[in-house]
Formats: sequence, C-alpha cells, structure tokens
Amino acid sequence: MTRLNMFNSISLDGYFTDSSNDMSWAHAGGDNKEFQDFVAANAQGENALIFGRVTYEMMAAFWPTPAAAQAMPEVAKGMNAAPKYVFSRSMKTADWAGTTVLNGDPVQEIARLKRESGVDMTILGSGSLVKQLTAAGLIDDYQLMVCPVILGGGRTLFEGTTGKPVLKPANSRTFQNGKVFLHYTA
Amino acid sequence: MTRLNMFNSISLDGYFTDSSNDMSWAHAGGDNKEFQDFVAANAQGENALIFGRVTYEMMAAFWPTPAAAQAMPEVAKGMNAAPKYVFSRSMKTADWAGTTVLNGDPVQEIARLKRESGVDMTILGSGSLVKQLTAAGLIDDYQLMVCPVILGGGRTLFEGTTGKPVLKPANSRTFQNGKVFLHYTA
Repeated sequence: MTRLNMFNSISLDGYFTDSSNDMSWAHAGGDNKEFQDFVAANAQGENALIFGRVTYEMMAAFWPTPAAAQAMPEVAKGMNAAPKYVFSRSMKTADWAGTTVLNGDPVQEIARLKRESGVDMTILGSGSLVKQLTAAGLIDDYQLMVCPVILGGGRTLFEGTTGKPVLKPANSRTFQNGKVFLHYTA
Repeated sequence: MTRLNMFNSISLDGYFTDSSNDMSWAHAGGDNKEFQDFVAANAQGENALIFGRVTYEMMAAFWPTPAAAQAMPEVAKGMNAAPKYVFSRSMKTADWAGTTVLNGDPVQEIARLKRESGVDMTILGSGSLVKQLTAAGLIDDYQLMVCPVILGGGRTLFEGTTGKPVLKPANSRTFQNGKVFLHYTA
C-alpha cells in the first residue's frame, strides 16, 4: 500500500480558491528564502499527482509555461516531470506530459492505485475529490499551507464531510512570511 | 487608542461553529499541559470581552456554571470576571456579571470604546461582528486556534469580506496536541 497525501494552500478563512476560482493569492510571500527552501524540498518527491478536472485544467494551463519556469523553476520542473492522473467522466485525452485520464469511480481507482502502483500520491486542489476520498478513508496525510489572507468566500475542501473526523498531529510549522504549514495524518 | 483583538477556535476547514451552532469540538485536546498553560496565560489579560448576541447567549449559558468551573477553572474565572459588551438591537439587560448591552452601530461603538475606554478588547465568536469590524479596519490582532477536526460545514468568520486583506505575521505556534495558534496583525 502506498500513501495518499493531500496538499493545498488555503486562506485564513479556509478556502482553496476564491469565488472567481483564482489561486494566485497563494503565491504572495513565495519569494521568502526559508519558504522557498521548504517548498522546493517538498516538491522533490517522486509522488504521482492526482487531480479533478477543474484543478487539472488550471494547473495544465500554468505549469508548462515559460512564466511558471521563471517564477518557480524547481516547482515547475517537479510538476511537469511527475506522473499525473486526472479524474473526469468527459475527458478522453490530456496534453500535459505524463497525464493518465481516469474515467472510473475515484474511490475505486485510488484504492487500486494505492495497492498496485507502488508510488505515493499527492492530490492538489480538487475539492470534490478530497471530500470523496476523505469520506472513504483513503487520505493518509493532510497538508495545508495557511496563507495570511482573508478571501471572504470561495471553495472549501471538505464541504459536506460528515462524522467530524479528528486528525493526528504531524510536523506543522510556521514561516517568517506568515504562512503556516499544517500537517496531520488520518 | 486601545487594541482590538479577535480570538476564535476554528476547524481545519475554517468554521468557528458547526452547522448545529455547536463549539464543543474545540475542547478536544484541551487537557494537554503545554496547551493549558498557554490558554491560561492568554486568559490572564485584563481585556474586555466583546460579543454579538448569539455568541453571548452561548457563552453566558456555560461559563458561569459549575461545569465550566470544574472543566476549565482558570479560563472560567477570567471569563466571569472580565467586563463584557454585547451588541444587540433587541436585548435590554443581560444577567452575566459585568455585562453592558450596546444597542448602537458596532462600528461606531467600537471606535468610541477604542478611543475612550482605556482597556484592550477581545471579540470571541461573533462572526457578524468580526466581519463588520474587519471591513471597518478596527481589528488589530487576529488570533485563530486551529483544531485538527473537519466539520464539513458551519459558520465562517469572514463571510463576504471584500478586498482580500493580507495580514502581517505575529507569533504563531504549534502545539503537541495538534492545535496550531495563528496570530496575525492588521
């Protein structure tokens, strides 16, 4: 069994996208050295990346571009090189290098990948997936990078989750730029 | 000018009450020594407490009781002894010791108290007040105690806040029990 991790930047009020589906607010403070070192180290892993269609299309429109290579060279390199899975009932193919489209049920497909793929996985964004996989008990690590901005509205990662699951502390830490990394395990 | 602070426990998904207006989930892990020492020190201040009516009624039904005195003696003592202000258009009087009912506009009243009262203030709960006073630029310190629980729904503190205010880092810290204290200034 491999591990399934979720990583997201969230606002102080708990949103991972604002009400216009924008995530650019999450980049503020990203030029801080201490923070950059952490992010680069965190992106060095060999994890496969898991997306819902909406997040995938946002990411696929950014990370392969020269703008991304210039702004965050290490992260862009990692994102582009990683094996990627996108869940969609409508997509047949996807252009971003290394992408496999999965049309089946996310819970069954992820359970299968955890048993068979031999590779740890990270979900980025993808609120609907996070919610379904949390309900199914398939997420092992929850990593949230809190950004010191108030969005006032947007999409949450766990909307409608029932049972009030309590997570176990792992290695949370604070950064000089005001971001705070929350890390919990299921 | 005195300072206005807001303090709240929030869930991992950013809610300060769950969808049944319950806040008892915030007490989990409260028996940890490191955490208790922090909370007791934080409650030692001489701050006046500020509430909206809904939060006030919840707090007034708990803190003066023997159950509260037994569960959290230091905090209960501080809460009961503190001067309290509750904003309500309908309330005329309030029973909890030391309470002043304010029927006027929160923004004007708080601006006046900051100029005239000589006492720092802390807002607890009270999402509507927090939102109005954030919009008016009257809150100086934002303190959020993140609890490692997923609620899936509830009330947020900043619903509808516009302009995406970015806060400045202060002394955030992590606790062994999984709670993470976020502290920012305006």
